[in-house]
Amino acid sequence: MADELKELLFPSSVAVVGASAREGKLGHELFSNVVNSFSGPVYAVNPGYEELLGRPCVSEISELPEAVDLAVIIIPAVHVPDALEECGRRGIGSAIVISGGFKETGGEGARLEARLVETANRYGINLLGPNCLGLISTQVGLNATFAPRGAREGDIAFLSQSGAFCTSVLDWAWKEQLGFSHFISLGNKAVLGEEDFLPSFAEDPRTEVVAAYLEGVSDGQRFLRVARDATVAKPVVLVKSGRAEAGARAVSSHTGSLAGSDRAYEAAFRQAGIIRAQNVEELFDFAYVLARQPVPKGRRVAIVSNAGGPGVMAVDAAELVGLEVARFTDDTARALGERMPEAASIYNPVDILGDARAERYREALRLVAADPQVDMIVALSAPTGILTYAELAQILAEARREYGKPITCSFMAGDLGERAYEMLREAGIPSAFDPARAVRALSALVRYADIRSASRSEVAEHEVDKPRATAVLSEAKRKDRVRLGVEAMDLLDAYGIAAAAGGMARSADEVQKLLPRLGDKVALKVVSPEMSHKSDVGGVKVGVPSEQAPEEALRMLNMARERFAEFPVDGVLVQENLPPGVEVIAGMVRDPTFGPLIMFGLGGIHVEVMGDVSFAVAPLTRHDAEELVRSIRAYPVLRGIRGQPGIDIERLVETLERLSQLALDFPEIVELEANPIMCYPDRVMAVDLRLTVSGEDE
Amino acid sequence: MADELKELLFPSSVAVVGASAREGKLGHELFSNVVNSFSGPVYAVNPGYEELLGRPCVSEISELPEAVDLAVIIIPAVHVPDALEECGRRGIGSAIVISGGFKETGGEGARLEARLVETANRYGINLLGPNCLGLISTQVGLNATFAPRGAREGDIAFLSQSGAFCTSVLDWAWKEQLGFSHFISLGNKAVLGEEDFLPSFAEDPRTEVVAAYLEGVSDGQRFLRVARDATVAKPVVLVKSGRAEAGARAVSSHTGSLAGSDRAYEAAFRQAGIIRAQNVEELFDFAYVLARQPVPKGRRVAIVSNAGGPGVMAVDAAELVGLEVARFTDDTARALGERMPEAASIYNPVDILGDARAERYREALRLVAADPQVDMIVALSAPTGILTYAELAQILAEARREYGKPITCSFMAGDLGERAYEMLREAGIPSAFDPARAVRALSALVRYADIRSASRSEVAEHEVDKPRATAVLSEAKRKDRVRLGVEAMDLLDAYGIAAAAGGMARSADEVQKLLPRLGDKVALKVVSPEMSHKSDVGGVKVGVPSEQAPEEALRMLNMARERFAEFPVDGVLVQENLPPGVEVIAGMVRDPTFGPLIMFGLGGIHVEVMGDVSFAVAPLTRHDAEELVRSIRAYPVLRGIRGQPGIDIERLVETLERLSQLALDFPEIVELEANPIMCYPDRVMAVDLRLTVSGEDE
Repeated sequence: MADELKELLFPSSVAVVGASAREGKLGHELFSNVVNSFSGPVYAVNPGYEELLGRPCVSEISELPEAVDLAVIIIPAVHVPDALEECGRRGIGSAIVISGGFKETGGEGARLEARLVETANRYGINLLGPNCLGLISTQVGLNATFAPRGAREGDIAFLSQSGAFCTSVLDWAWKEQLGFSHFISLGNKAVLGEEDFLPSFAEDPRTEVVAAYLEGVSDGQRFLRVARDATVAKPVVLVKSGRAEAGARAVSSHTGSLAGSDRAYEAAFRQAGIIRAQNVEELFDFAYVLARQPVPKGRRVAIVSNAGGPGVMAVDAAELVGLEVARFTDDTARALGERMPEAASIYNPVDILGDARAERYREALRLVAADPQVDMIVALSAPTGILTYAELAQILAEARREYGKPITCSFMAGDLGERAYEMLREAGIPSAFDPARAVRALSALVRYADIRSASRSEVAEHEVDKPRATAVLSEAKRKDRVRLGVEAMDLLDAYGIAAAAGGMARSADEVQKLLPRLGDKVALKVVSPEMSHKSDVGGVKVGVPSEQAPEEALRMLNMARERFAEFPVDGVLVQENLPPGVEVIAGMVRDPTFGPLIMFGLGGIHVEVMGDVSFAVAPLTRHDAEELVRSIRAYPVLRGIRGQPGIDIERLVETLERLSQLALDFPEIVELEANPIMCYPDRVMAVDLRLTVSGEDE
Repeated sequence: MADELKELLFPSSVAVVGASAREGKLGHELFSNVVNSFSGPVYAVNPGYEELLGRPCVSEISELPEAVDLAVIIIPAVHVPDALEECGRRGIGSAIVISGGFKETGGEGARLEARLVETANRYGINLLGPNCLGLISTQVGLNATFAPRGAREGDIAFLSQSGAFCTSVLDWAWKEQLGFSHFISLGNKAVLGEEDFLPSFAEDPRTEVVAAYLEGVSDGQRFLRVARDATVAKPVVLVKSGRAEAGARAVSSHTGSLAGSDRAYEAAFRQAGIIRAQNVEELFDFAYVLARQPVPKGRRVAIVSNAGGPGVMAVDAAELVGLEVARFTDDTARALGERMPEAASIYNPVDILGDARAERYREALRLVAADPQVDMIVALSAPTGILTYAELAQILAEARREYGKPITCSFMAGDLGERAYEMLREAGIPSAFDPARAVRALSALVRYADIRSASRSEVAEHEVDKPRATAVLSEAKRKDRVRLGVEAMDLLDAYGIAAAAGGMARSADEVQKLLPRLGDKVALKVVSPEMSHKSDVGGVKVGVPSEQAPEEALRMLNMARERFAEFPVDGVLVQENLPPGVEVIAGMVRDPTFGPLIMFGLGGIHVEVMGDVSFAVAPLTRHDAEELVRSIRAYPVLRGIRGQPGIDIERLVETLERLSQLALDFPEIVELEANPIMCYPDRVMAVDLRLTVSGEDE
């Protein structure tokens, strides 16, 4: 995969189709950017010239003297498909279509774009765009965009689905002196999407971090797979916008009503080890520190300051983002006590006082940085007359080199002076006025350390009885049923998910036959998949003594048939009467981007009212399934509280894995919810089920 | 109050005690700042000179030719009390003690500080400090600090408990061109604290917003009272650091274990209508926009952008901070449709496309700003070659003036140019690279609009039987009891909080006597206040048939006396057997700063495991009590879910008010928890109670 994009990302020759001599035209801006930045052969394609900005110009792609690595196309949309066809014929394997006028404009544009895709696929062309700003590859020195600013060399690979945001970032990054290894405007993602670039960036030795702005992911399952691998090698931090877009979808379960599309993204990013930034400020704060600083060994932060207040602010921020305020070793505490003035605070946060000169700051910082119980450092300084920020920057840069621990800083001042800035930049140490921001940057490093060390477990393949499950669904199909209820409990059983014992009955006699294996008492449930809230209308009775069960079942059936004549009634489910336990809910909906999205939560009001649920995209690794269970707030209830024994969490985790497998095996199940699943210290048992199958898929 | 501080905040003459001619000495820096900034009479007090920087210098305070409005003292700590005494004698009513060496240094310093307080009180001197940077009053042009930077004139009144942070802010604000009406370094707050300045700032016509950095509040109850009033007049935004400081206190209830000191601050700030900023960035972002822009009429925001991506980011940010994305009127939509290009998005967020010139931006912005369904606007722009930021800034400034609605912007670029900056500054429009930050700024305005329109209800004074409550507590005192349980339920009854009917019994006979008024079944509870988790050890039985109650009670008593010989057992509480209902918990702990802190939450796992609780500082206004109930996540359960009737919320609110009254009337109750309180559609009934009383207070 990565090799395939080599010519696009590191071309050795480039042709610009639609290069122009006229200033102000994008074809001119683009071509001059290419000419001015790139040292390899550059050709123009334009029937109007023989030479452009001193480079050879041909009138047709076919006339190019060599099959260039990369063609950059900037001509009216309607001519682009033919141009791409010519590229294919000429043996050009990579192309960027800058031109707009495709899918984003509707009908005709979408048809043009479909032709692009078809052509690219036929020739195996790696196509970036259309409707994009282009790309910048600083390693080969190529600026193939029409943006007025290029990019400085650096170690951030940047991907954006918004061309305008690319322009903004280039302009801003130039001022901030932030550098990039790659800078890619994805445009319409007709062929190449974010998931195609991740593997290349993961392998690129010059790239330290991937930063991205996405509005959506093209192929959720592939993205998840590719990103899981990429994040082992490199941190990936992104802003995914469109949180607010509520998934407009018909819902018939708690799972459905809670599972907006952003829940799926959130889950997939977490599962893939992607760090999701809340906003643009975080995106670049995180990218910068992840690119330039090492991963800490733990989450213990030391705070060194020449003022008390800012130190306390940093402690608060650390608490807020889940870092630990380090506790120094006795040696460190003693050394600080000996060398700092008496009024100094030698416990974390260390306050070396406002009269500290560079020497005292250096000493304190070194002592703290050398402490084995310190994983990283935040250095703070209010302005004083006797300690310059340039001195301070140098002290931090030295400590950064010497101790190999992450350091961020907050120089709380108006203007630091260019020397201080430059030293900080060289050392890769970010500085912000707000101490909280310096702490948050460190939290991104800790987050990535957690991601790297998370167990990379496999997706378990449990033994299941697929034919039996198929039979249940075929039966539903035969009956033209879209909604199924407890009558489909066999589906769970077929997939190794324990369900309460029981069976369907249509008469008192049939009830009688089921009783012997169900104990003294039973639960009776009218089976009518279209009827919701059965228990509210008297369709459910629990704790019915066996001897009364046949009669009671008959009464319930008659009641249901009378009162709810509009619903087909299949019969009564006679189930073993389960003892009290912890009720949980497990469900699945099919997300348009990621496919099966599994939900988990505690029963009762916890899902509906409290919204205390967790989500994960199938397939679930063991780690994913465990996280599903662990990440609800009510998790302690599952572990056991107030002397109550915990439930069989292992079995519950396996149940979720099996549910994930079921969802993947049968795409025709569009929604499913096992509610409740009764959990006990030694077993986990589904009691009720609702699912919706699509009439179309097989 | 406000008048009292007039001489401190707007002095007409100043003396600097400890003024020095030697450069580098703080006494010199301070004196030159005063001389260079202040146009009224300035005197130096220093026995070494007759004149300093061209101003008269006297050797003693008593020799000052007039009783100046303000003395600024910067001499060694040990001499400060005498100097203050002299000020008092000379009739000087306001003083700032810059010098350190007081309480912050421990024993001897604390004694010196106590002398300062005593002297200030004796003479009625308004004393700022000691151990502070001083103050700046831009309206009288006075810079009475030793900081190298002064403050520009502006409309933010700033208070800080950290002197170093003052220096930082002055330096940074100078660069950012942020102005202040008052700039106050509070220091040790020996006499004057934040609560003294709030009323003056609220009345000062030049102050539009109060911004503060606090590490703690001196007098919680007074602060709450004063701040409630101040926030009606002016927005108050602050950073309170020290969140992480867990209250180290012995706890014997859920209330106690959950009520850290930050919970009390959080509650008090909310009750007082103070906007709490999460960090320094927010503090000044919020202060700026609150100072310079009007309060919006609602929470509906319009987004205008020349690029799609940033628009979506703004929508996300709006969602995150609880703003509504405005829905335009048909007229606006039609007008936008007619005047914008076809490819533009005319729904909110409005995307006028990257080829928009100033005219199109102006037109779109005006249409949107004029829409009655739009309360405020975020204007976004990526850099393009055909629209300058200066043009854009002018468009925004005009719209700001013309429509009277709040506008913030995100000019997503590296450098806007001084003209653009200047126009934005003049118009009071903040700009940030990150669209999310522009949206957050608006959210502060909405927050303040909510605060201003919140009902300012009074603290209800319910009729209670105080003597009866006193009797219960005296009885406990007589018995030397610190922990009380159900035997103290009369306390609740005396304060009009309904409790389950019942009574204490020590024998089968006594049980028998209680039965007639308690119904067919009763609940039995062993009364032994020291024994916790009684139900786990068989000390509680519910639903006991009346005829079995005497025998059962006896068995329980014997069991308790045998198994828990270490605990004194008072007897058995025989209670009416209550039907199932919604269980809630109400509690109180005494916060060291704010006094009685009331907690509310749902019973079961909601308090302990889910932490779904709310807090408010007593006295509770009706609004506070309602908010206590409304702000738990499980609130819908109280309103009624799934066809269940809701509970008597009105009565519950009153119960919390009565609890607040009880807590205020009896300071000797240090902790109290009514758990559970059973709630029904028509009543609310306390079932169990635990409280801790202090042996010391009366």
